[in-house]
Amino acid sequence: MIAEALQLRLVNGLPVEHVPADDRGLAYGDGLYETFRVSNGRVTLRELHFERLWRGAGRLKLELDQRLIESEVAEIARQMHEGVLKLTVTRGSGPRGYRFPDPQTPLRIIQTAPLPPVGISAGEAGVRLFCCQTRLAQQPLLAGIKHLNRLEQVLARSEWQDPAIPEGLMQDTDGNLVEGTMSNLFLRFADTWVTPDLSLCGVQGVMRDHLINALRGSGETVTVRHVRMEELGHSTEVFCCNSVFGVWPVVGAATCEWPIGAATRQAQALSMQALE
Amino acid sequence: MIAEALQLRLVNGLPVEHVPADDRGLAYGDGLYETFRVSNGRVTLRELHFERLWRGAGRLKLELDQRLIESEVAEIARQMHEGVLKLTVTRGSGPRGYRFPDPQTPLRIIQTAPLPPVGISAGEAGVRLFCCQTRLAQQPLLAGIKHLNRLEQVLARSEWQDPAIPEGLMQDTDGNLVEGTMSNLFLRFADTWVTPDLSLCGVQGVMRDHLINALRGSGETVTVRHVRMEELGHSTEVFCCNSVFGVWPVVGAATCEWPIGAATRQAQALSMQALE
Repeated sequence: MIAEALQLRLVNGLPVEHVPADDRGLAYGDGLYETFRVSNGRVTLRELHFERLWRGAGRLKLELDQRLIESEVAEIARQMHEGVLKLTVTRGSGPRGYRFPDPQTPLRIIQTAPLPPVGISAGEAGVRLFCCQTRLAQQPLLAGIKHLNRLEQVLARSEWQDPAIPEGLMQDTDGNLVEGTMSNLFLRFADTWVTPDLSLCGVQGVMRDHLINALRGSGETVTVRHVRMEELGHSTEVFCCNSVFGVWPVVGAATCEWPIGAATRQAQALSMQALE
Repeated sequence: MIAEALQLRLVNGLPVEHVPADDRGLAYGDGLYETFRVSNGRVTLRELHFERLWRGAGRLKLELDQRLIESEVAEIARQMHEGVLKLTVTRGSGPRGYRFPDPQTPLRIIQTAPLPPVGISAGEAGVRLFCCQTRLAQQPLLAGIKHLNRLEQVLARSEWQDPAIPEGLMQDTDGNLVEGTMSNLFLRFADTWVTPDLSLCGVQGVMRDHLINALRGSGETVTVRHVRMEELGHSTEVFCCNSVFGVWPVVGAATCEWPIGAATRQAQALSMQALE
């Protein structure tokens, strides 16, 4: 379909390729973003995405026009039909210095892209994960939200080049297993799913939120708690998830190997329903 | 002088006001910056600034053309004669995803501004500091360098509005006193200057580096160590410093008051020599 190939960029609603050089997103990472999967002309997991975005805006005291942003996202999703829609919002331009400009004039950027090709085969065959040396700092003020200060993820992702490994595991500076560089983790112990607590660091992924609810709704027990790196070897199934690819079964990391179990396939089916 | 009013912006050497919307400085804060004070047509503390910039580039694996950047900065300093020159370097444009683009095409931005007006009176009369609630996370990988992930400073600076208070104190998440939002700290205990250790968090300011050397060169003892917040009340003199304003004597913070002592005035004189 020709609609699938639509790739565009809008800055404050206009089809331009540039942003002002004094934007605070560039100067300080002073902003937020969301990456939506678009299916059949609509963004998926819409409520969870916007809930996180407004929560992040509250944390950063960022003044956003929610109605304008939601309607623009909906309109672009309608036009692109399928693919990935990335929304970035920043505090806009300002003079030198950390102090907020008054008034704030937020900037919004929408960029669309096709779905990444790696997703489907990785979902079927499972993935091996790299174990990153880069640790996540513990910063409760920024934990959970999807802000633009992402150097930890950038450094972690630079640690491996093997194209067969699509994702890496990250610990925090205290040795807690937290997340992937671009996804969240679920580990199975006996009859229970465990996903790491993200109150100190990590991004609270919307697919993680969705799966916590959906798995519980289907009778599974899901526990949110801190997970030590050493526990990885004791889990019987592992998967990572995000709002673009859904669920990837994890078949290996470091010296560990896992089968792709029925519980993981159930979570994957729940993720695919949400992305339709 | 008309030269003092020169304000310009260069992006990759061209006088344009915009940067590409897919720049990774904007997407992830994937870059570095330096703020030089320009005096008599030259950047001051030149070697220390570039030493930090190349150290940061090494940490971020950022491929920069050092000779080009140094010569461009020198040429703009010559044109502007006096003021503040901000240099930002990013990893440039890239597709969606944390992975480095290959090859990297770094972006450089130079922006000039007049000297901030608050500097001179604050240097003479001293300043009161706000005590920020926002804590700094401990992240050794990013400590010391001047990267573009600055949300902690942005949030800290948003905590107070009183224009009479130009700076705020920041602790880390363990209760160590680390720095100001835009400056470094020196505290005097008996005959010794102490400045907080920055191996876990904080920006290693070039004026701090300069003063450690210059004070030692003039016979002072300067100790670099972790400082507990509670020690603040036991210090006999306090100052904050950066490479634009030099030294500001600190006359108060929380319930503490300090005189402006001779040792602080000595440090201030050393800072002004470096900024000439």
